[in-house]
Amino acid sequence: MTVVERKPTDRLQDSLSQVQKLLERHRLVEELVHRQEESRQEPADKQQLVENLLHRQNLTELQQKLAQLHPADIAYILESLPLDDRLLVWELVRSEDDGEILLEVSDAVRESLIEAMDSDELVAAVEDLDADELADLAPDLPRQVVYEVMGSLDEEERAQLQSVLSYQEDQVGALMDFELVKIRADVSCEVVLRYLRRFDELPDHTDKIFVIDDDDILKGVLSIRKLLVSDPDAEVSEVMATEVVTFHPDDHAEDAALAFERYDLITAPVVDGNGKLIGRVTVDEMLDVIREESETDMLNMAGLKEEEDLFAPVIDSLKNRWAWLAINLCTAFVASRVIGAFEHSIQQLVALAALMPIVAGIGGNSGNQTITMIVRALAMGQMQVGQAWRLWRKELGVSVINGLIWGGVIGVMAWVLYHSFALGLVMTVAMTLNLVLAATMGVLIPTLMQKFGRDPALGSSVLITACTDSGGFFIFLGLASLFLM
Amino acid sequence: MTVVERKPTDRLQDSLSQVQKLLERHRLVEELVHRQEESRQEPADKQQLVENLLHRQNLTELQQKLAQLHPADIAYILESLPLDDRLLVWELVRSEDDGEILLEVSDAVRESLIEAMDSDELVAAVEDLDADELADLAPDLPRQVVYEVMGSLDEEERAQLQSVLSYQEDQVGALMDFELVKIRADVSCEVVLRYLRRFDELPDHTDKIFVIDDDDILKGVLSIRKLLVSDPDAEVSEVMATEVVTFHPDDHAEDAALAFERYDLITAPVVDGNGKLIGRVTVDEMLDVIREESETDMLNMAGLKEEEDLFAPVIDSLKNRWAWLAINLCTAFVASRVIGAFEHSIQQLVALAALMPIVAGIGGNSGNQTITMIVRALAMGQMQVGQAWRLWRKELGVSVINGLIWGGVIGVMAWVLYHSFALGLVMTVAMTLNLVLAATMGVLIPTLMQKFGRDPALGSSVLITACTDSGGFFIFLGLASLFLM
Repeated sequence: MTVVERKPTDRLQDSLSQVQKLLERHRLVEELVHRQEESRQEPADKQQLVENLLHRQNLTELQQKLAQLHPADIAYILESLPLDDRLLVWELVRSEDDGEILLEVSDAVRESLIEAMDSDELVAAVEDLDADELADLAPDLPRQVVYEVMGSLDEEERAQLQSVLSYQEDQVGALMDFELVKIRADVSCEVVLRYLRRFDELPDHTDKIFVIDDDDILKGVLSIRKLLVSDPDAEVSEVMATEVVTFHPDDHAEDAALAFERYDLITAPVVDGNGKLIGRVTVDEMLDVIREESETDMLNMAGLKEEEDLFAPVIDSLKNRWAWLAINLCTAFVASRVIGAFEHSIQQLVALAALMPIVAGIGGNSGNQTITMIVRALAMGQMQVGQAWRLWRKELGVSVINGLIWGGVIGVMAWVLYHSFALGLVMTVAMTLNLVLAATMGVLIPTLMQKFGRDPALGSSVLITACTDSGGFFIFLGLASLFLM
Repeated sequence: MTVVERKPTDRLQDSLSQVQKLLERHRLVEELVHRQEESRQEPADKQQLVENLLHRQNLTELQQKLAQLHPADIAYILESLPLDDRLLVWELVRSEDDGEILLEVSDAVRESLIEAMDSDELVAAVEDLDADELADLAPDLPRQVVYEVMGSLDEEERAQLQSVLSYQEDQVGALMDFELVKIRADVSCEVVLRYLRRFDELPDHTDKIFVIDDDDILKGVLSIRKLLVSDPDAEVSEVMATEVVTFHPDDHAEDAALAFERYDLITAPVVDGNGKLIGRVTVDEMLDVIREESETDMLNMAGLKEEEDLFAPVIDSLKNRWAWLAINLCTAFVASRVIGAFEHSIQQLVALAALMPIVAGIGGNSGNQTITMIVRALAMGQMQVGQAWRLWRKELGVSVINGLIWGGVIGVMAWVLYHSFALGLVMTVAMTLNLVLAATMGVLIPTLMQKFGRDPALGSSVLITACTDSGGFFIFLGLASLFLM
């Protein structure tokens, strides 16, 4: 009797390479069969038999390997495989794991798997899931499958599913589950322990029991840790905690996640406006929220619409990226017209063409630094919109100093390279002014986004670069036209 | 007996505004006193008395407000306050909470708080912390304080502290704690329950008990959920789980966090090479790891060295940002020299100056999309370095199609604007080639970083922009010089 699993990441990588090796072998045999079929009309029966056998052996081995794996591990392997291999593996997975795996994979990969299944398979895969899990999958499932599964639920489950589905994806209500252990306050700990023993299994993550009155109003929580060390004769009302962090179903999931982090929660009750207990949220959902939130911020800042399946067909990637590329093209076109307006100056002093990208570039870099700071502070709730003014003054200080130092360096270089002190001076002033613009827009863009209820991260990088490009060209070429021509 | 706390985020915002209001009032009174002192030599005793009283009343009210708050909430408030207010609040916090609060605040804010304390205060603040908590703070504490605290520890605690300190910040060993509940396999569940009842309090997050043999070798784990529903007479060895996810102290914290997410863990044992149980990791540490990891990626991509205290003095911000700005300046300078090499062409056809930023800009945007995808896939372990080739081919497809479509659009615009079909054609070809370059570097840069053990996110945005700027200018101006001059 020894501990079996060790170093989960290594083990996972091992599993992946084993599956990959088996897949490779499988493809090889397939190709062989294919080639031989092509090369002769009359198949040599015996040889084909051997090949078929080999073929089946491979798949059986693969199937056995997959059967040993945790659904989350299979999900990881599916995500790491190109589309054709992925669908082959998906075929071989035990069908009772299908639902769990669909829950674990990323949205983009889930779509590719669901596309490969027919209605009956889908119904079979998801009908055993809990209401909250079903609700997670529902948006990706064909409407008809959802109806069919709904029909097979009992009344309570259907009500739960409808309740979860009625909330936005980013609300606590969409993440709550209904696996509650509820007790009354006027029983003894001994009774609670006996009551618990009647369960076949306690719900996942059960770290506390919810104490309610006759009307399901939450009165407190009894932590299991407390229950275990309490006197069996003590009444629940004596040992339960009454200061409880609770959530409403319409609370933001991100706020809930921050509370889980702050107060080190494992589970927390969800109550309605009257304090009635309706569900609970668990830390594993919150881990996903944190992961997804930061990923979405990262993708949004880079101008990607959503998470992308690494191995998605080219067309899917194009769809995911075209919107921000188009916006970027428009802003680049504006910047180009700004330069176009100064063509006369550039013709007179062609050095301007060479120097102008430096002004624009440093503004973009510095602006991205500022905007990243602000987006992060807004996301963490560390900054309120009202503080923008104070932060702007600070960023202004940073940008003026940076402008004078780095603008000075580049100014001297320009002076030396082009033998013009005036050109160097224009360069320094233009860089400083563009950094000031970058600081201003870096604070202003996300603050306004937040104020008007938009995600501050959304395309922030593209927007700030647009400002610092057009602005930088205008400032530099404008100053040059005024003072050097 | 009703549930007290609700909607933690709103409540937290309320607390913050209350504290801010009290601080404002305090500053107002201070200013009043100051002004009056200035305006007359002989203080009017009575008036001053009133003011002093008011002054003290304010601070008492503030202190009372703070005393009601959870250390994590105070940490949040400290992070949201400018430096002078922050230090005033820090003074007023109950000293027994100091250690907890220092643990909760961000690194940057922690520094500012520690700077304001003398050695004795620091020793008093941290001496009651656990070994793993002490280890978290140790790098930020003055060396002398660490020695003093170490001297006051008993031998076991000192060994634990030294062990935690011997690991890198991103290793499991640095995050583990030692609050283990250990049992033998050959006792009954009844005995375990009686044993647990002897504790005053079970360690935080206890969701499982560790089953060991005489040599402390981990034999399995007994989940509390299982214990509660098991027959009291059953032996631990019958009900414990032997398939356990364990970690080694030198495992990467990020890998551990992924495993926690994948297998929905609350706690997990840490074992040495011989399978001996040495500590445990808990999900609350993993939440922090995930949060920090994604934040670091985001900051690194934008070219910020580390997390910044929003209200840090300007000089700290400059230090945090100057390195990547300097690198950016160098790359911008290179791009500028590339343009400089084609000054003759630009002089002949000044439209080139106006069009070239479009080529560079679209390349930068598209390259950032690609690199963000790849950085994310590498961080999640979904992509292996060996798959770079396959992904590059896909990105190539995306970039060629984007180049032909968007390059075509801009090419037609250039044709119409400048009445030159050849110029439009050069524009289209240059954009396509620069997008191909962006796709190539977008895959290559993070893959190489990963291969050589560096963080793929590190300054990736600055590096890819450098490639697409210089490359874009070179491609466009080069083609124009060849075919249009």
